[in-house]
Amino acid sequence: MKALIYKAKGATALEDRPKPEIIDPTDAIVKVTRTTICGTDLHIVKGDVPTCEPGRILGHEGVGVVDAVGPAVTAFKPGDHVLISCVSACGKCVYCRKLMYSHCVHGGWILGNTIDGTQAEYVRTPHADMSLYPIPEGADEEALVMLSDILPTGFECGVLNGKVDPGDVVAIVGAGPVGLAALLTARLYSPAEIIMIDLDDNRLEVAKTFGATSAVNSSDGKAFEAVMALTGGRGVDAAIEAVGIPPTFELCQRIIAPGGTIANIGVHGTKVDLHLESLWDRNITIATRLVDTVTIPMLFKTVGAGTIDPQRLITHRFTLDQIADAYDTFGRAAETKALKVIIST
Amino acid sequence: MKALIYKAKGATALEDRPKPEIIDPTDAIVKVTRTTICGTDLHIVKGDVPTCEPGRILGHEGVGVVDAVGPAVTAFKPGDHVLISCVSACGKCVYCRKLMYSHCVHGGWILGNTIDGTQAEYVRTPHADMSLYPIPEGADEEALVMLSDILPTGFECGVLNGKVDPGDVVAIVGAGPVGLAALLTARLYSPAEIIMIDLDDNRLEVAKTFGATSAVNSSDGKAFEAVMALTGGRGVDAAIEAVGIPPTFELCQRIIAPGGTIANIGVHGTKVDLHLESLWDRNITIATRLVDTVTIPMLFKTVGAGTIDPQRLITHRFTLDQIADAYDTFGRAAETKALKVIIST
Amino acid sequence: MKALIYKAKGATALEDRPKPEIIDPTDAIVKVTRTTICGTDLHIVKGDVPTCEPGRILGHEGVGVVDAVGPAVTAFKPGDHVLISCVSACGKCVYCRKLMYSHCVHGGWILGNTIDGTQAEYVRTPHADMSLYPIPEGADEEALVMLSDILPTGFECGVLNGKVDPGDVVAIVGAGPVGLAALLTARLYSPAEIIMIDLDDNRLEVAKTFGATSAVNSSDGKAFEAVMALTGGRGVDAAIEAVGIPPTFELCQRIIAPGGTIANIGVHGTKVDLHLESLWDRNITIATRLVDTVTIPMLFKTVGAGTIDPQRLITHRFTLDQIADAYDTFGRAAETKALKVIIST
Amino acid sequence: MKALIYKAKGATALEDRPKPEIIDPTDAIVKVTRTTICGTDLHIVKGDVPTCEPGRILGHEGVGVVDAVGPAVTAFKPGDHVLISCVSACGKCVYCRKLMYSHCVHGGWILGNTIDGTQAEYVRTPHADMSLYPIPEGADEEALVMLSDILPTGFECGVLNGKVDPGDVVAIVGAGPVGLAALLTARLYSPAEIIMIDLDDNRLEVAKTFGATSAVNSSDGKAFEAVMALTGGRGVDAAIEAVGIPPTFELCQRIIAPGGTIANIGVHGTKVDLHLESLWDRNITIATRLVDTVTIPMLFKTVGAGTIDPQRLITHRFTLDQIADAYDTFGRAAETKALKVIIST
Repeated sequence: MKALIYKAKGATALEDRPKPEIIDPTDAIVKVTRTTICGTDLHIVKGDVPTCEPGRILGHEGVGVVDAVGPAVTAFKPGDHVLISCVSACGKCVYCRKLMYSHCVHGGWILGNTIDGTQAEYVRTPHADMSLYPIPEGADEEALVMLSDILPTGFECGVLNGKVDPGDVVAIVGAGPVGLAALLTARLYSPAEIIMIDLDDNRLEVAKTFGATSAVNSSDGKAFEAVMALTGGRGVDAAIEAVGIPPTFELCQRIIAPGGTIANIGVHGTKVDLHLESLWDRNITIATRLVDTVTIPMLFKTVGAGTIDPQRLITHRFTLDQIADAYDTFGRAAETKALKVIIST
Repeated sequence: MKALIYKAKGATALEDRPKPEIIDPTDAIVKVTRTTICGTDLHIVKGDVPTCEPGRILGHEGVGVVDAVGPAVTAFKPGDHVLISCVSACGKCVYCRKLMYSHCVHGGWILGNTIDGTQAEYVRTPHADMSLYPIPEGADEEALVMLSDILPTGFECGVLNGKVDPGDVVAIVGAGPVGLAALLTARLYSPAEIIMIDLDDNRLEVAKTFGATSAVNSSDGKAFEAVMALTGGRGVDAAIEAVGIPPTFELCQRIIAPGGTIANIGVHGTKVDLHLESLWDRNITIATRLVDTVTIPMLFKTVGAGTIDPQRLITHRFTLDQIADAYDTFGRAAETKALKVIIST
Repeated sequence: MKALIYKAKGATALEDRPKPEIIDPTDAIVKVTRTTICGTDLHIVKGDVPTCEPGRILGHEGVGVVDAVGPAVTAFKPGDHVLISCVSACGKCVYCRKLMYSHCVHGGWILGNTIDGTQAEYVRTPHADMSLYPIPEGADEEALVMLSDILPTGFECGVLNGKVDPGDVVAIVGAGPVGLAALLTARLYSPAEIIMIDLDDNRLEVAKTFGATSAVNSSDGKAFEAVMALTGGRGVDAAIEAVGIPPTFELCQRIIAPGGTIANIGVHGTKVDLHLESLWDRNITIATRLVDTVTIPMLFKTVGAGTIDPQRLITHRFTLDQIADAYDTFGRAAETKALKVIIST
Repeated sequence: MKALIYKAKGATALEDRPKPEIIDPTDAIVKVTRTTICGTDLHIVKGDVPTCEPGRILGHEGVGVVDAVGPAVTAFKPGDHVLISCVSACGKCVYCRKLMYSHCVHGGWILGNTIDGTQAEYVRTPHADMSLYPIPEGADEEALVMLSDILPTGFECGVLNGKVDPGDVVAIVGAGPVGLAALLTARLYSPAEIIMIDLDDNRLEVAKTFGATSAVNSSDGKAFEAVMALTGGRGVDAAIEAVGIPPTFELCQRIIAPGGTIANIGVHGTKVDLHLESLWDRNITIATRLVDTVTIPMLFKTVGAGTIDPQRLITHRFTLDQIADAYDTFGRAAETKALKVIIST
């Protein structure tokens, strides 16, 4: 089968690989019909993710059709259409029993990281009963690719961790795909205001069409002043960090109102300054999270009800043969205006 | 009347001052019968609290007897025995309506800070209906001085913010009075283990008599290793920071288990490093809080039920005339083994 | 001034009364500009509310302009435009400190019940600082009359008590004004389905325009079967009772899914059967509540943001002179298709 | 092997049965070392539980040693000492994913009900990975039998559903084994008062030794008056119903304070009156639950920490040959003063 391989720092290649086989009795083999590229995949290719070694098939998102199941799989059978969670969960360990699938001692984020992933014609999915989700007949399967990772990430790490409530003022720092996913799902809780902050006017325009009530271009270094002006000097109830660098986390600390919550989605590569000298008495909360994807069933319902339209995140489409172009388009998002790209296999 | 005055950086004096008078209709004048000294008072005297200017009467804790009330006070009358909260709450503002009295726009921590305080024969208490608490006849008034600040601080900022639950493993970094107050009140939620960490063997011994299940002297720089050994390498569910300096906050970040909570009680004077490069995917929460004293009524009940014995925090007693000695004793706690000192007026 | 008086069982009269005066220092006198009629007012006139004695000025909803304030009122001054909460809250008692204003020991629902109410040119509002809300300039004051009682009632007693979450299936039994208020505010939490159940096709049609995803006319006695068919036999996550009679509460018990919540809004005059023989092991919750109106500030924000449009509840308008017609129209709602009526004074 | 069989209404027999075998790949066979009798077993023998048909091996509690495991069991191997949960959980279904194991669509309470149970030398336990719990070496295995059902039932259905908090006033109606289990576990949250109500002075005496602060013998029909006297007329924050008949549920409704919670543990055979005519505006919550046993891991920790001593519930010991005597002793608890009986196999 064809599969995209991480070859070395900066290098990938579409190669022929043997079709994966059942290893553990809880495995399934899924014929991937559509996958996508995550910002994390770009990090891997840059060499920033040491757990992912050269030779690995990339990708942790996708939908497909079950091709084979191990003898301990009871919820799926060949032919079932399924969504693949980016997180594999055994369902039995101390963390799974707390619904923290991200820290499953036998799973977690392993696809396209420590085991072969979804940017291929077939993928082996461990713990299939807990890590695949049935796709109802007639659903828009392309749209559901957004439920593998990006929408639950925006929702769990940003919106739930940010304790977004009706009437709240929310700031989202970073209008890339995951920030926009936070925006789409924040609206499930009807905040009064959603202030979107980014350096890129195009993305801010997109954010407005997604429901942001204000857009702040922070390239002038005055985002703090802009947010204070928008909030009557009070700051925001929830600040969602969706970039992953010190300056954006710093901004979140400056704009948070007393009693507010900073929810971190960004993947950080270095430490940041935490200004406890001014925050120790502000009654604030900072929350981090690797997506658990426990909200996939709920997100399925809101997509089914038409409350969220994941198609809005999809800007480009490619075939597996064109996956190098897909990476290029996604990697130059500022120029290409790409949000999420779909790769059909 | 006699009152302890903050004169200048490093200097206080017991002076004669006019007895305070009702200014606002919601004020009460309380004849202070017993007060105490807080670590924050030491900070003020060192010149670390710029909001507190020279000339101020110090102190924000105490019990006493109502001497006079303004015309809008309805819950108290002269002769009532009362506990004085360290936080004054108007009860009406946007923060009071959220039970965040610490950020009351007309109050908060003002006693002995921006207005005259309790280390005097009399004190004016603003917003008396919301900021004083009736002492039932026959109660141990000396013990109740611990409910003005230190027990609610340990409980609200440490235990509630730390989300301590039955069966949890809790670490408290800092076995000073506020760390010990966190220890006493953590036991209300029956954690399975409470690991106390400090540099001072005496305080660690005290912590054991207060119910700590383990004591770690961190002077060898190996507290992290000790906590990991005690927890089977898993880390702690709640890490309560009760010191207020970068190394102790750093330790909390190292020992926290995935899904755990760092509750900050310490008053920090400088920024700290936040290791988001390792914590971004650990599903942890960091919470800060200035005590709201909303739990004073609950703490009254647990003291009444004998579940908490605040007397255990009291080590020394002085008269108001001896208050300089009281500061000296409290300030040299490592030598004097002082926890909280009582000053009778 | 003119005021509507409850004269005797079945009888009211528009009479001249002296303009009210400040009694307590926390009182305000408000010139009422618009008021409305509540289902509870109809109950009073029928003689069903023994706490409300003949001679009482009716009404507990409205907006107006502050005419005078007592000396202890600090948040309002004459000329301020205000919303009047149906619940008066001292802010200081044991229940107010828990944000349970409905059980305020010095207030609660007293307006138009145990003290004179708002269906008059002027009203005395006790505990004005905690019981009036400032209306921002330019707001639609008529629409805000819906925030005195009906929207917070639908939201607090129905939606919050029903723990409505994104993706949930919600049933609302009763499509009268309060059921429709629950419907409007349930949408703040983005449930996947809202099933509206009533006997009146007109009200069900209105419910659909308000966002109900299904409408069930229960006059055939088969509402249970209809809900089961709509939910694949699973039942609903939240059942909101908005009628107040045994059969509707019984229906809620039959349609609730395991783990679900029955939220009671209805004012019940008799006991009901609770089928613990089938519910004891179903992990369900039943919640009752008299509205606390603690969510008025939040509802203000959602109205300001355009998320909720209270005007949709207003169907008829009258002057105070026409208030008898207003009662007649509101009392014959099945014929007149009245939801809420506005009375301008 | 020997096993206790439910033969017919009112009749059981100790018979020889074939040793059970693995049926499903997730099964384990456990050699039972100790089991006990539950009030529900008495109900079955009386013919009150139609799901349990004659011929069934009784019992849903116990500890033992794993004898064999199916090919899909990964957490246990022969020789492991295990605690058997009364509830079997697949871990994968919609209810298990919500931690509502009691409603597992492939499990729930099936042991000794719809499949053969634990009052035998061996038992087949379905979904073994999720339904057995490892017993650490050196633990008091007899005491741990109390974690199969009675302690999690008292804790989850009574204490957690009752939202018991530090400082609360709790009433427990019924001082039988499950009421006493609620009492032992309520203390994990440090309520200020625990009022125990029963008809049997012996059980009330036991309750006092377990930590009840007051004991009310309700045989004079004046329990309501007694509770009101004990609470200054205010009522209780949490009322835990641990009997399962209309009069005790009625008492809970009368003694509950505004804002309080009624937690039902009792197994009810008939409907009860719910007095919504007086409770509709009291802001109360009623919660039902079949135990999910999700708290077994936490209870293990509190037992390990010595916070709860399950041995206090054990009053009598028998061998499997004497199981008829055990039923007799447990069934005549008023005379025998039996709480829980241990049967060694």
